Order: sequence, then structure tokens, then C-alpha cells
Amino acid sequence: MTSVQGLKGTRDFYPKEMNELNLIFNVWKAAARKFNYQEFDGPMLEPAGLWTLKSGAEIPEQMYCFEDKGGKKIAVRPELTPTLARMVAAKQKELQKPIKWFSIARCWRYEAPQSGRLREFFQMNVDCLGAESMMADAEVIATAVEIMKSFGCTENDFYVRLNNRKLIASLILGAGVEKSKLQEVSRVIDKKDKLSEKDFILTLKDLNVKQEAIDNILVMLKSQIADIKEEKLDESGKKGYRELMELIGWLNAYNIFKYCKIDFTIMRGFDYYTSTVFEVFDKSGEFRAIAGGGRYDDLVSDFGGEKCPGVGYGMGDVVLGLFLKKLNKMPAANPEVDYYVAPVNQAVVKQAVEIAGKLRKKANVEMDLAGKSLKKQFEYADSIGAKKIVIVGEKDLKERKVTIRDMKSGNEEKVDLNSL
Amino acid sequence: MTSVQGLKGTRDFYPKEMNELNLIFNVWKAAARKFNYQEFDGPMLEPAGLWTLKSGAEIPEQMYCFEDKGGKKIAVRPELTPTLARMVAAKQKELQKPIKWFSIARCWRYEAPQSGRLREFFQMNVDCLGAESMMADAEVIATAVEIMKSFGCTENDFYVRLNNRKLIASLILGAGVEKSKLQEVSRVIDKKDKLSEKDFILTLKDLNVKQEAIDNILVMLKSQIADIKEEKLDESGKKGYRELMELIGWLNAYNIFKYCKIDFTIMRGFDYYTSTVFEVFDKSGEFRAIAGGGRYDDLVSDFGGEKCPGVGYGMGDVVLGLFLKKLNKMPAANPEVDYYVAPVNQAVVKQAVEIAGKLRKKANVEMDLAGKSLKKQFEYADSIGAKKIVIVGEKDLKERKVTIRDMKSGNEEKVDLNSL
Repeated sequence: MTSVQGLKGTRDFYPKEMNELNLIFNVWKAAARKFNYQEFDGPMLEPAGLWTLKSGAEIPEQMYCFEDKGGKKIAVRPELTPTLARMVAAKQKELQKPIKWFSIARCWRYEAPQSGRLREFFQMNVDCLGAESMMADAEVIATAVEIMKSFGCTENDFYVRLNNRKLIASLILGAGVEKSKLQEVSRVIDKKDKLSEKDFILTLKDLNVKQEAIDNILVMLKSQIADIKEEKLDESGKKGYRELMELIGWLNAYNIFKYCKIDFTIMRGFDYYTSTVFEVFDKSGEFRAIAGGGRYDDLVSDFGGEKCPGVGYGMGDVVLGLFLKKLNKMPAANPEVDYYVAPVNQAVVKQAVEIAGKLRKKANVEMDLAGKSLKKQFEYADSIGAKKIVIVGEKDLKERKVTIRDMKSGNEEKVDLNSL
Repeated sequence: MTSVQGLKGTRDFYPKEMNELNLIFNVWKAAARKFNYQEFDGPMLEPAGLWTLKSGAEIPEQMYCFEDKGGKKIAVRPELTPTLARMVAAKQKELQKPIKWFSIARCWRYEAPQSGRLREFFQMNVDCLGAESMMADAEVIATAVEIMKSFGCTENDFYVRLNNRKLIASLILGAGVEKSKLQEVSRVIDKKDKLSEKDFILTLKDLNVKQEAIDNILVMLKSQIADIKEEKLDESGKKGYRELMELIGWLNAYNIFKYCKIDFTIMRGFDYYTSTVFEVFDKSGEFRAIAGGGRYDDLVSDFGGEKCPGVGYGMGDVVLGLFLKKLNKMPAANPEVDYYVAPVNQAVVKQAVEIAGKLRKKANVEMDLAGKSLKKQFEYADSIGAKKIVIVGEKDLKERKVTIRDMKSGNEEKVDLNSL
């Protein structure tokens, strides 16, 4: 006899929790399918090298890594994007473009479990590869908005914060930050939401960013897109600015710009983003990002493929679930039980099994397995929400009939066995 | 630039393969739901100790095991049953009986990849806990038969081989095997299908089983249930015999005994089975077992719960997939595309996006993202199997109309925008 508990930061999905998870999965799938994204998946374990290249510093630190019995370095996937890039690179010539794929990926990260962050989670990934136009970025964002709307959320509940990596890099440099410090400063800006303004300034000072540049950054981060003077930007910054303006045009066409807000503090942690970056947040500011993504035009070539533009995002189930529960928008649905077949006594159980078998051709049917009394069977059928009870009795059977009781109306009718 | 390949024994599920996998999942789910089994799941990683207790010798050897950053011994789950037992033990009092659960579990085993055996696979688990009656064993087997029938397989394609652990133990002892050798001899019998008769005899001789006992075993394994003389069995053997006879009665009631065959060589590798054991095989004998399971009345108490009878099985996706493909019974289905919205030129793309947005309220809709010509858009729409093309042209738009072309009939009709 032993008693073992599941690992910290994991969840056991009992039927109730599994139903909720499936509801989220179903909304994710339906939203992606509306835009004709195709489902794909890769293995849960991958060569660890897949994440050391381009995921940024955080991810490899949080990976579950080990050597298998053959001495190979293995990672339990912490995210799906490198797998996507690997798969696209492997069949790049055969795949019809644009590649519009989605996946519900089970992932693991070794972090301190806390609200909205678990060690095991599911992440919806929506990606579009092979399309350069900002129309693709808008479509991908539209699928995220579609998911939120499908749960009944409105522009009062959530919004999409948008930025452009080229533009923000140009703005940071324009603020007076040296080029060699661009990546480090970007990472500090990425963490700005979690820091006080004082700590934010101190962290930049630790990087030897000059006071004047810090002051400029603080003003810049609060500025609006209308404040940007295109002519003051470097070439890459001009490109980023035009991309962002073009994206806004498409977001209006998709009728979702009302859900969006330009926000120069949105950086995203991954190094592979090259252009658009975005995050979905609840408006109350209570939760971490519900989703995050962006454009990664070099990712496929980083994994051995030919250069191929791409844009996509991930949306985890944990923060989304907390958010939906807080808004009372997590639908509570139990799977359907169409019939409960109840033999009146043990002498007719085998006939009842046959009747249940007939009904199962078109319905979900429950039966007692433990010799319960008719009364107990009725109580049980009621407790599981069965729609109808089929009462199988000796007298009825002699006339080749059963009695069917509608649980909602309480009405009973005798039905011929042949007409079931 | 790097080029990384996926791990040996894993699969990349491109949309085509993912569709096939989803087809299998859908059949699995629908069959379980017909019998009112509820879906559940546990974490992919579990404490390694969960499998060292009762899974038999093979499983711990094949586990992907490692220490996490906190020094905890972790296993990537090689099967789901111990997780099930852990979850039931943790909430045994609250859970309504019988517990009828299923799960589609992603699992890993470190084995030499070969036909029908991969390192990563999906396994359908169907389990019924809390019911002592052999009716539960029959119902669980009926769900497996339902799955096979749902794929269009008949009694000419597959069969269920049945045995009873108590009965077979009694028969082995009755053949003259010493009690201390029962487990080892059982394991050799379990492997009999993979050995020549000569090797089978030699392996038993290596265990110092007497020639007379070996001869008796060979005769016994080929015998029929009708050959068994109940009075010659020990008490446990008698119980097993009666269980098996009772099970046959229920299998007849479920109208599935025609798919079943008593076979005294079926042992199942796991130590936790206590009574019924069964395996689903293709009739041609070409493949490994498609599914396997049995009754495990002590499992929950082994995991710290109260004693709770249980019966269940696992069915992997790999052998099943090979089997269905060989029989041409793997349905090739592509997800639906209801509409392809085609702007005639770039000037009307944004209007086309709006029209696509309207249609998405009730349909799956594809649109070009790359500025393709109308001709190319038509070709693409055809290649993805779109049912209808919505042609968005400037002249039509002035009358607030679009032209909808039915791809099957080739008919076109003008439709008012408001009626979309």
C-alpha cells in the first residue's frame, strides 16, 4: 500500500475539470476552423537543442531537460513554435502556402507554481507562414479575438496590446541608448509591468544607460502612435512604422481594431520576433497575458529551412480559465446521457442489455452494473441528467413493449420494441 | 542556421496525419460516450514511484525517467492506469460509483522503434471501477468491440481473446508447476506467441520446470473451456472458472460473444490484473495486440485507497492505425471549408474581409492573404475543397451584391449582401 500525489504545478482532470478543458479546446478549434486553420501537432519530447537557439534566455532555464537511455539530450517541450519551424523546414517545398496551422500543445515549464502559472499547461498555437502582408497578422489576431468573443467576452473585458519590434528598436535607439545595449534594454522594457517606475529606472541605470536616455525612454513608452515622427526614425524604424500603420488598416477591415491598443511597452520575451508583437490582456489588469505572439520572419531559416515569413501566437488554458471563471463565462456543460435503461428486476437485466445495445446505435445510453433497485436506478438516472428512462419489465416484455419516461415532463408512454 | 530532426520513434502530425489521428480520437470518444463513460486525464509527468509498484518488470525498464531541478524523480507516463488509481484513491469517497471513465493518454516508452511500436503513442483507456459484476467486464469489452465496429470492422477482421487470471493460475499449478514459479511461468506463457514451441519449452526448462509439467502445460494451453473439469480446480481456480462462465453469459447478452474466443495463453504483462484478462487482435495475426486489459480488483488499494473492484483496457493508436490502413478502413476526411471569399482585385480586399467576417458567424471561410489573381484564387479554392466561392467585385458591390459560385454544380447566383 502506498500513497502517491501528483507533481506540484500539475492538475488532475476529473470529469468535471476535463469537461471545462474540452469546452476551451472546442472554442479554440472552432475559432481556428472559421479561418480555415488546419490542426497539427509534434512530439511532446524533442531534442533539447531546439530551444537553445532562438527562444530567449528564459525558456531554456525553465525547460525539463534530461538524457535518455541512449545519451541524447531531451526536452519536454516548453512551447511549440520551434517544433513548428522544424516541421515546416522539413517539408517546406511540398507544403502549400500560406501554411495556416493551429495546435493545442501540452507543454511543461519548471517555474514556481502561482496564480495563472502552472508547470503543465495547454497552449493554443495559431500560426500563418508564407504570407508577408500585414493582412496575415490581422487575421491571426482576428482568430484570438474570435476566441474571446466566442466565450461571450466583449471589448469591456479584454483588449489586444500591439507593438512593432522594428519600430520600438528604432525608438529605443532614438532615445539615446547605445546599439550594444538594445537587447538588454528591450528585456527590461518587457518586464516593465512587473516593476515599479523606481525599480525600472534603477535597472536601466545598472545597465549604464544614461539619465537622459532613461528620461527619453519614459516619455517614449507613454507616447501615442500619433506622436511618432516618421522622418526621425532610422530606415528599419520607418519600415516598422509603416508595418504598424498597415496593420491598423487591416485590423479595421477585420472590424477588430476596437479591441486593440498600441502599446510601446509590449516586447514579448522570445528573441525570434522581427516585426508585429501583441498580447491579449484582461481589462481589469488582474491577470497575466491571456495570449501573446508576433511576426517571426527568420524563424524557419533559423531551423534550416529557406526564409519564410510567419506570424502566430500562443494562448494558454490556465490564465484564460481563471479569467473566464472570474467573468462567469466558463460554460458548465455535462456530456449528454440520452437514455437510462432500467430493468425492474434481475430477471430482465439481459433483455435490458439488448435494448440498451439497440439504442446505442443512435444514442448515449447508461445502465446499472451493480444490481441496484428500481428506485435507486431512478435516483441515479436523475443525478446524471439522463433525458429519458426506459423501464424494462416482465409484463411489458411479454407484449414486446417497454415504458419510456421523459425525465423533464414526467410523461410515460409504452413503446413497441421494434420501433426503438 | 541549424537543422534539427525529431526524436526517433516519434511522429510529426502534419494536417493530414492529424486529421487521421483526430478521426481515431473521435471514434474512441463516441464509442465511450455511447456507454456513458466520462473523459478524464492526468498529468504527462508523474512521480516515477507510481510505476515501480505494480506495473510488472517491463514498464519501469522502458520508462523515460529523470530528476527535475528540485531533485524529484520524474517519469514521463508509460501508461495511464496508475494515474487512474491515484486519482480514484484521492477522491474515493466523493466519487459516485460506478466510476466509468475514459481517457486518450499520450504516453512514452523507450523501446526499439519497430512496426506497430513507437516511443510516443496515444492510448485510449476505458475503465469501470466500483462494479464487482462480470457485467462490467462485458460492458468494457463491448466498448472495445464498438470501436472496432465503428471503423467498419467485422468478426472476420478482429477478435477478442479472453482468459481469467485465477483460472489460469490454478491450471498452471494443476499442471504440476510449483507455486514459487507461478509468476515466472505466467510470464513465459505471456510471451508464447513470440516464441517457437521449442524455445518456449527451453525457457520453461531453464526455470527448472519438470518435463511432465511442461507437457501438461502444452496440452492445457490448447484446451477448450469445455475441457475444464471444475472439480479438479483449487478454490481460486473454481472462482475464476465461474467468473469466466458468468462473463460469457454477459458477453452473449451484449451480443458480442461472436467476437470473442477463450484463449489460455492470454496473460497480459501487468501484475495488477486479478481476474478477467483480454486482448483484441486482428484475425490475420499480422499485428501486435490492438488493445489489452482486464480486471484489477486490488489496484486502488495498492495506491492508498480503499479496496475497489475495477476493470479496464488500453488501445493504442499505432497498431490500430496500421490495421485500419491495411483494411482500407481509415477514413480520409478533410476538415470542411464552406466558403472561399475571392476579391476580384486589390481595391475590394477590405470589403471582402468584411464579407468573410459576416460569413464566419456560421461557417468556415478561407481568404487569400497574398494578393493572388482571381484565377489563382479559384485554383486554390478548388485545391482545398471549398464548397462555394464568394466573388467580390466592384460592380456587384455598388448594387450591394456578391456572386456565389457552387463549386460542385458550377452554378452562380447573385446574392444580396444583407441576406448573407
